[in-house]
Amino acid sequence: MLPTLRDRRTVAQAITIAENDSPDAAKLLHDLAPKLGHAYRIGITGPPGAGKSTLTSEMTKLLRKQNKTVGIIAIDPTSPFTGGALLGDRIRMQDVSMDEGVFVRSMATRGSLGGLSAKAKDAADVLDAAGFDIVIFETVGVGQSELDIAKAADTTIVVLVPESGDAVQAMKSGLMEIADFFVLNKSDREGAEQAVRALKTILTFRITHAEDEWIPDVISTVASKGKGIDEVLAEIERHKSHLLKTNTLEKKRTEREHERVIELVEIFLRVDFWTSERKKKLEEKVKNVAAHRESSYEVAMELVREFKGKS
Amino acid sequence: MLPTLRDRRTVAQAITIAENDSPDAAKLLHDLAPKLGHAYRIGITGPPGAGKSTLTSEMTKLLRKQNKTVGIIAIDPTSPFTGGALLGDRIRMQDVSMDEGVFVRSMATRGSLGGLSAKAKDAADVLDAAGFDIVIFETVGVGQSELDIAKAADTTIVVLVPESGDAVQAMKSGLMEIADFFVLNKSDREGAEQAVRALKTILTFRITHAEDEWIPDVISTVASKGKGIDEVLAEIERHKSHLLKTNTLEKKRTEREHERVIELVEIFLRVDFWTSERKKKLEEKVKNVAAHRESSYEVAMELVREFKGKS
Repeated sequence: MLPTLRDRRTVAQAITIAENDSPDAAKLLHDLAPKLGHAYRIGITGPPGAGKSTLTSEMTKLLRKQNKTVGIIAIDPTSPFTGGALLGDRIRMQDVSMDEGVFVRSMATRGSLGGLSAKAKDAADVLDAAGFDIVIFETVGVGQSELDIAKAADTTIVVLVPESGDAVQAMKSGLMEIADFFVLNKSDREGAEQAVRALKTILTFRITHAEDEWIPDVISTVASKGKGIDEVLAEIERHKSHLLKTNTLEKKRTEREHERVIELVEIFLRVDFWTSERKKKLEEKVKNVAAHRESSYEVAMELVREFKGKS
Repeated sequence: MLPTLRDRRTVAQAITIAENDSPDAAKLLHDLAPKLGHAYRIGITGPPGAGKSTLTSEMTKLLRKQNKTVGIIAIDPTSPFTGGALLGDRIRMQDVSMDEGVFVRSMATRGSLGGLSAKAKDAADVLDAAGFDIVIFETVGVGQSELDIAKAADTTIVVLVPESGDAVQAMKSGLMEIADFFVLNKSDREGAEQAVRALKTILTFRITHAEDEWIPDVISTVASKGKGIDEVLAEIERHKSHLLKTNTLEKKRTEREHERVIELVEIFLRVDFWTSERKKKLEEKVKNVAAHRESSYEVAMELVREFKGKS
């Protein structure tokens, strides 16, 4: 049974199936495959405190006014000793999540062994197949898997704030490379103009003068006051048209699936490999490594050799 | 031939061998295994601009005064369109790298497919086997692999600055969990006292009242002026004694090797799996996925099934 917009519980259940590495997940996502491709996927990322949730929330309100349905996958960084996700951001999104045309799913990074980005993409497929017009990934721009999720979109937006050094931080943390355009949020703060200029300067490094090149822009917003949100949506449309005009949307989506298969292969291999007995063997072997009698390389190679022999 | 402190070129070559996934790497690291365990490993991480390199450099100068030899592995975040590592930080370390008792190796995160942290640990093993007393990992606290490296130490230090929100950022980005203690650098700046208080408050969340529990402290420094560096070294010693007193150093190192083997297994499996023909097959299959004729799950499972059949 495929999830439909009419049945939110089915959508929620389908995402849960996708989240749990159950055999049903593969079956479900296989069944969904023919229904994919309708949703336009938007990735929103940036440093903590940039106002990503507020921006997502305001964009969603505006998209709803345009009668577009919106599915949101929000990745919460978690902290072992604060006990679970920092839900402050989530709470601000309740106003939109009451709406029938909006579906918000929160996922925690906690304890996810690289599997998170695969799961987030699965959830996006469920929402896509369910008929949502727009699927938004909202993730904090720290950590490779978070960046992978943000990249798994048709248009990726990097949100920054005027605070000095933020642009440099973004550059260092690999946020600049994945941005289709930038949003300078909290642009009513001091230093906003300089920040926009700094970003535009950095962006000039990216210009390759290739034919049909997309030049990322910087959009200023004050999400908390709903300012600049229409410009953000307009820029998304501009980027979408560019992707279609240059026939790169399909290319982009193909590359995405390419990455996805590689990611899934790793997960499947990991699951197949770490049987309880192999885990047990590792426990014993690692004692020798700690005692410097064996090298971690030796042990790893031995385990892999044995795996390839067995299977 | 094992690297020795007397032969810097051999050390450099050995690290290069470890860096390149050559078959010699496994051989080399196997040969090194018996010589490991002398070096005390220190991880230094934190947000960009916290002054990690300056701190590392000042700590190294002081350690040299104590006649301790220091090997440094510095992970540089790289940016595709700025072309290579942001070397500004590195340059500041030249004054120490001229010293015979100091060995600095810079590694770039660019294009490293999760292999980076394994390589950094290999380099640390080379330096350990070469007889360095102290091995320092210096990495920016963005990205899982960078955190993994910082965690691969006996004592992990998280460096923060007084800027508001930095503590919260660190909390969100998983830096708080890995800190054995904190260094508040640039503590001559405004807001330093509040920042220390904020950090100490957050740290109280971590107290479990377990027996022999280690309570992380916050050390204030002004690395650029060499202030507080002796306190940092003293805190490292205090942590080391705690690890020894509670017999957790061996336990910690064993867990580390445990993680390491798992990491190496993934790398070996990846290399074995992605043969040129399997890559070719993926290229073809992924077209079906993009056209929604097949699911990425199906393709991944098919490839894995075939791999297990073959090997």
